[in-house]
Amino acid sequence: MNSAINKCIKYEISVPSKEEMFMFPVPKLCSIERKLSRLRCSDEERQRLMASHAPFGELFTDHMVVAEYTKAEGWHDFAVTALEPFSCHPATSVFHYGQAIFEGLKAYSQPDGSLAAFRVEKNAERFIASAQRMAMPPLPKEMFLASIQALVETDRKWVPAGFGESLYLRPFMIARESLLGTRPSSVYTFSVIACPVGNYFPNGLSPVSVWVSTDYVRAVRGGTGEAKCAGNYAASFLAQQQAREQGCDQVVWLDAIELKAIEEMGGMNLYFVFSENGKKKVVTPAPSGALLKGVTRDTLLTLAGDCGYHVEERRIELDEWRDGCANGRISEVFACGTAAVITPVGRVKSARGEFAINDGKSGEVTMLLREKLLRIQHGLDADPYSWRVPLVGVGD
Amino acid sequence: MNSAINKCIKYEISVPSKEEMFMFPVPKLCSIERKLSRLRCSDEERQRLMASHAPFGELFTDHMVVAEYTKAEGWHDFAVTALEPFSCHPATSVFHYGQAIFEGLKAYSQPDGSLAAFRVEKNAERFIASAQRMAMPPLPKEMFLASIQALVETDRKWVPAGFGESLYLRPFMIARESLLGTRPSSVYTFSVIACPVGNYFPNGLSPVSVWVSTDYVRAVRGGTGEAKCAGNYAASFLAQQQAREQGCDQVVWLDAIELKAIEEMGGMNLYFVFSENGKKKVVTPAPSGALLKGVTRDTLLTLAGDCGYHVEERRIELDEWRDGCANGRISEVFACGTAAVITPVGRVKSARGEFAINDGKSGEVTMLLREKLLRIQHGLDADPYSWRVPLVGVGD
Repeated sequence: MNSAINKCIKYEISVPSKEEMFMFPVPKLCSIERKLSRLRCSDEERQRLMASHAPFGELFTDHMVVAEYTKAEGWHDFAVTALEPFSCHPATSVFHYGQAIFEGLKAYSQPDGSLAAFRVEKNAERFIASAQRMAMPPLPKEMFLASIQALVETDRKWVPAGFGESLYLRPFMIARESLLGTRPSSVYTFSVIACPVGNYFPNGLSPVSVWVSTDYVRAVRGGTGEAKCAGNYAASFLAQQQAREQGCDQVVWLDAIELKAIEEMGGMNLYFVFSENGKKKVVTPAPSGALLKGVTRDTLLTLAGDCGYHVEERRIELDEWRDGCANGRISEVFACGTAAVITPVGRVKSARGEFAINDGKSGEVTMLLREKLLRIQHGLDADPYSWRVPLVGVGD
Repeated sequence: MNSAINKCIKYEISVPSKEEMFMFPVPKLCSIERKLSRLRCSDEERQRLMASHAPFGELFTDHMVVAEYTKAEGWHDFAVTALEPFSCHPATSVFHYGQAIFEGLKAYSQPDGSLAAFRVEKNAERFIASAQRMAMPPLPKEMFLASIQALVETDRKWVPAGFGESLYLRPFMIARESLLGTRPSSVYTFSVIACPVGNYFPNGLSPVSVWVSTDYVRAVRGGTGEAKCAGNYAASFLAQQQAREQGCDQVVWLDAIELKAIEEMGGMNLYFVFSENGKKKVVTPAPSGALLKGVTRDTLLTLAGDCGYHVEERRIELDEWRDGCANGRISEVFACGTAAVITPVGRVKSARGEFAINDGKSGEVTMLLREKLLRIQHGLDADPYSWRVPLVGVGD
């Protein structure tokens, strides 16, 4: 199928023999140009880099996907190229008016040596929703998946094989028009880059401590809280710094209107485990119009239920959290997200005081759900949900 | 002082003979490298471009200022260079986590042929405040002014001479580290670019119509509303599109908590003119923790007072606006900002109905303040406030 010349050949997405392997239709001939103009890492160099325990998000694979959008042509020129810098006019719209969205997902090694992603459709859908909120052009779902697949196939040697390890994929879109008029850009770049990753938190699964911010808020309904947009993150860094100054690892956000209800932790969603009469119930804050509805959060709504726990989405206030830890009703709290999977929360500090959860230790529900989720992602457990999305076969 | 070779010479900021010319101390030897590696526009080409009535922010001068920040070196390598693209790794922090702030100010031709800016210190101060909110390294005030001055001096031929015309200056700072870890960048670029501009609104001073958004909000206290950061603008575009769909020119924001109090219009502040017993009072929304405190807004607090109007900063709700227009208490409403100076508002539309202000016509207070402000900026009226900041002398 491929030409002998590896420099600038037509790259055809390998369509799975069974269409139902994919959760959404892939165009039969979704062509992505392959432009490999730069030398790749040697096998030795790549192995050395992958063994170097680089911090999360600082080691990149050899390639990237790029595509351009203009009003006249729509999305076009999808290509896998060497990882190369963008050339940006100083007036490039993203520098001034911040139209930038992204997604985060992972490719996991499977026991048979194939590679699979997890619920890519959810990421593709949220990427569309984020684009709409930021007045950016939505990227068709099938091009989102085809881009992920093309990059993982090209850089398949960069996917670590260990349990809990993966290739972190970062699809993103930025405004590229050069103008200072305050209006949406008419030119955009879509790109996917990738990083081999181990565990997100350097200290492994030791529970994190959190600072509940009342000086800063993350988002408010009617704002951009439900979009995975760049500005939400820049807005959070000062609160994160304050958390560090308070001796805590992460910041916890309250609702912007009353400063009472728990929303999120840093860039992750939160789950609260209640124990009543020997029964366990897991509770996560209900969507408020400001909450980022994480894919892992959504996955756990189903998975926790199937593990025998009662599951609830509802409002939960800081007072209930504190009282629940004091009277033993709340036995565990954990945060969840694609990058860090599931992370226990051990200690809570706010302007009104400090308290521990489960004596600052990881709890059994947290550990069980984490293990269960990772086993499905790595193909070690059955996947009755069809969450795994095959990307690259054994022989590909 | 300058070497004969124009290619890469040391460029020393010309320090004004009287230090009090500047509102804040300029280092005696604040050196900015001058690297002019590309051909500039010919005089004819520049004149043709300046006469072409390019839309706001789409025609740029020949040069730019750039400087770099690293944790080890702090701010360094200030230079005036040809306007050239930045080379950005796809993981550049500003693309993913949105740390980006900017300012907008203008250089005005003076009657004697010299060039002056207006209240630059306010922009420098807000740039520091914006940086602090976004966990970015503040740029010292003196480097902010020196950069403005160096660029205007280099591109002085690009400053239009007409009344109401100016050179729009855009200082901005972006995060430049290549990483996907969610933390503040440790590398930043500061830059200043410039655009010759006429009137901001293409239809001149014909009053604008506004759509009061209740679906979207701009900011909430504890958020980033007081910072001039890129993310605030991206967040506003969808509401702006909605305004267009409603047949309006601009969006008006309500407070995020109650959706009642008026905050801003698009990227500009608002003023309401009340008439009572033949006396005029101008009222602008009080800082709420979410409002961007504009330099023009601040200037008018003083200028309107000195023009004999009573001035108030207070909460004003949409209901009061509507009722005031109905019963004749509110005779004019205008928006103000650096780019568009002062723009009358003629018509207001919301989900609850529509009403006109002053029969949709410009009012006398609006026109008087606009003329007065422009005359001070252009050096045609006395400046008892020391607002004008000389940048380039006649003989320079």
